[in-house]
Amino acid sequence: MRPTLARRVVAEFLGTLLLLATVVGSGIMAERLAGGNVAIALLANTIATGAVLIALILTFGPISGAHMNPAVTLADALAGGIAWRETPLYILAQLTGAVAGVATAHAMFGHAICTASPHIRSGPAQLFSEFVATFGLLAVIWGCHRARPTAVPFAVGAYITAAYWFTASTSFANPAVTLARAATDTFSGIRPVDTPGFIAAQIIGALAATLLFGWLQPVPDSAQE
Amino acid sequence: MRPTLARRVVAEFLGTLLLLATVVGSGIMAERLAGGNVAIALLANTIATGAVLIALILTFGPISGAHMNPAVTLADALAGGIAWRETPLYILAQLTGAVAGVATAHAMFGHAICTASPHIRSGPAQLFSEFVATFGLLAVIWGCHRARPTAVPFAVGAYITAAYWFTASTSFANPAVTLARAATDTFSGIRPVDTPGFIAAQIIGALAATLLFGWLQPVPDSAQE
Amino acid sequence: MRPTLARRVVAEFLGTLLLLATVVGSGIMAERLAGGNVAIALLANTIATGAVLIALILTFGPISGAHMNPAVTLADALAGGIAWRETPLYILAQLTGAVAGVATAHAMFGHAICTASPHIRSGPAQLFSEFVATFGLLAVIWGCHRARPTAVPFAVGAYITAAYWFTASTSFANPAVTLARAATDTFSGIRPVDTPGFIAAQIIGALAATLLFGWLQPVPDSAQE
Amino acid sequence: MRPTLARRVVAEFLGTLLLLATVVGSGIMAERLAGGNVAIALLANTIATGAVLIALILTFGPISGAHMNPAVTLADALAGGIAWRETPLYILAQLTGAVAGVATAHAMFGHAICTASPHIRSGPAQLFSEFVATFGLLAVIWGCHRARPTAVPFAVGAYITAAYWFTASTSFANPAVTLARAATDTFSGIRPVDTPGFIAAQIIGALAATLLFGWLQPVPDSAQE
Repeated sequence: MRPTLARRVVAEFLGTLLLLATVVGSGIMAERLAGGNVAIALLANTIATGAVLIALILTFGPISGAHMNPAVTLADALAGGIAWRETPLYILAQLTGAVAGVATAHAMFGHAICTASPHIRSGPAQLFSEFVATFGLLAVIWGCHRARPTAVPFAVGAYITAAYWFTASTSFANPAVTLARAATDTFSGIRPVDTPGFIAAQIIGALAATLLFGWLQPVPDSAQE
Repeated sequence: MRPTLARRVVAEFLGTLLLLATVVGSGIMAERLAGGNVAIALLANTIATGAVLIALILTFGPISGAHMNPAVTLADALAGGIAWRETPLYILAQLTGAVAGVATAHAMFGHAICTASPHIRSGPAQLFSEFVATFGLLAVIWGCHRARPTAVPFAVGAYITAAYWFTASTSFANPAVTLARAATDTFSGIRPVDTPGFIAAQIIGALAATLLFGWLQPVPDSAQE
Repeated sequence: MRPTLARRVVAEFLGTLLLLATVVGSGIMAERLAGGNVAIALLANTIATGAVLIALILTFGPISGAHMNPAVTLADALAGGIAWRETPLYILAQLTGAVAGVATAHAMFGHAICTASPHIRSGPAQLFSEFVATFGLLAVIWGCHRARPTAVPFAVGAYITAAYWFTASTSFANPAVTLARAATDTFSGIRPVDTPGFIAAQIIGALAATLLFGWLQPVPDSAQE
Repeated sequence: MRPTLARRVVAEFLGTLLLLATVVGSGIMAERLAGGNVAIALLANTIATGAVLIALILTFGPISGAHMNPAVTLADALAGGIAWRETPLYILAQLTGAVAGVATAHAMFGHAICTASPHIRSGPAQLFSEFVATFGLLAVIWGCHRARPTAVPFAVGAYITAAYWFTASTSFANPAVTLARAATDTFSGIRPVDTPGFIAAQIIGALAATLLFGWLQPVPDSAQE
């Protein structure tokens, strides 16, 4: 029996909150301790983010699907998963959860609740990175979702662990994450003016992967393992 | 057939002992080798702790449930899991196991068995961190416990790996761990006077998550995977 | 029902593309951030590569088998898996995917699309390393494939994580990867003139493991777990 | 159907060879690249060792049980697993495999095949560390073996990852590993004269855990998951 919409929306809110608290909080901690070595700081930020994704998707997946990402919700609706009428509420929960997660991280580290980021992330290489990052994320989700759904949490956690390093943008790959990270003047921030390009590239990447996997996996077999 | 209470209590003692031996021992080793780079020391401490949680919950889970944490035992009793009359013995085993684990770590590294920590960890940001850390831990446990119990060891190990970095307190999230770490004058210590606030924040966080997940997961379905 | 050959070939192309984008992209990012500490750079490169292998084999395994490696495809054909007539298309997809992956990484980091590597990797120790690396890779694949196929993604990801460090060559273990890495003047490159020796050593290692495991696992039982 | 003894012995030889090649090889690589930061070197050595254990136990477990450790073989014989008459061949395969693994690592890195280690590892703290390390290893093996055998590779890999850091001796926890590491004048070596104490402590730790878990898990239920 599927949980009620209210429960699923709360799960999306809470999952996205904890995701952003981790992305931003571990970035603050990593920068504070790394003594200027950015590779060590990004490594800690990466390990925390990849690990929390495994935990959160295992936790909230059975309730809401654990999208925690408007690009995933849109792709799922396009592929006939979540009903279109539920999509706005999911996305609203993700956006407010993401902002609440940044505020939570700031409160835990004694920062002001909300601060605009001056971190420049622009240019075609960054946008292409976000396209690749989100294309890959949706490829992983669609590839595992049908053939081996219980592996999705590990596949997504592993993918983002890699994507933090193989893209020039450190793989935001998530419009809610992108908007919320504009509100933190710390390691993981992004200048507000750079967010629309990121989000556009992410949505195009998500759609491209969804279309491609619609062809790669044509038979809607029931999931099995 | 459930193991006898004696066996379960010994499992809790031994599991908590090995958990604390890891937290404290890896902290000593990490600080000794890291040459002053705290990020590298915390990274080693994190990887050791996350990994040992996976191993210990897989090992002792089938015997005692592998709580190794009074906040988890209290939450489980509140949710109708462990019987209230068994709770004091579980918590006693966890507390004594935790202290024995610190002593084991000290003996392995040639330190005095027990030393009060001067490591200050106080203030609202630290307390809020412990609330968030323990709220998240119980959320992960409850979320996985019903829908996918075999994933709990990996979910908890991954969560704590992240939580060491995304909270300002490095996520004690465990009253037995908190008390025992007051007895080590090393990397992972906490000043004895700071422990009551930590423990109060942890218990409030655990209760809040337990109440919330009582609503999020209302149907007591049998576990399935 | 097995996917069509076209779908499987596209899956091999795309999987190998994302694999090389990760190997090369994370090498660029790691070297850029590591401040001259090669161990930290290789650690980041290792974690990204091991993690992406888990994600990619989970994603593309159910479609094409996720070989992403001509040595694996040849060994599989030799062992009676993939039909010999399909082998050339698989290998072509892997080679073109690998080159496209390098180009993708270069585009994401604003490098020229294709640059010859001056990175010398020659001598008997390097060749013996590639023999051992590929022998071990095929041993892991054959060992898991029959007895526990769902563990293959994790076993291969874990093996390559280790092999980056225990071989003097950092374990290319893949002819498509080797050729494509000749086209990048970055952290992960290899001088074009050194590639034939690497590829020969890899194929000999793959064949040796395949023959040995043909004897070690004689009974073609159906996979079970 | 259980594989023949010849196949199982070859699997033990090969598994232990690859284990030692990883322990010693990754130690050489890590020390060479780490620029004097021992924490970073040990972190790389740890990640490689933990990961290869997952891969090797998944690979060789279905053939020989993947002991790769005389202490495990003895404990298994004591608990009524492997027949006593097969034990000497298992241990011989492990010892020769371990030495061959060191030689393989040395050959890959262009070192002399065999060199005595001057690395002092003595004193009660070191011996107690080896007792704890091997006690914990066998606890993990016995705890998972009955209740959740498919998790053993991950539990052992995770445990050793932690034990490299929480013990003062970096957890050899294996007599074959101990003897072979006396033959390498590199990062992971041990002075030959220190090996008897290590081995004695390891065997006592293994026996203690085996006895304790004989009581903790009294009912020989068939494995289930």
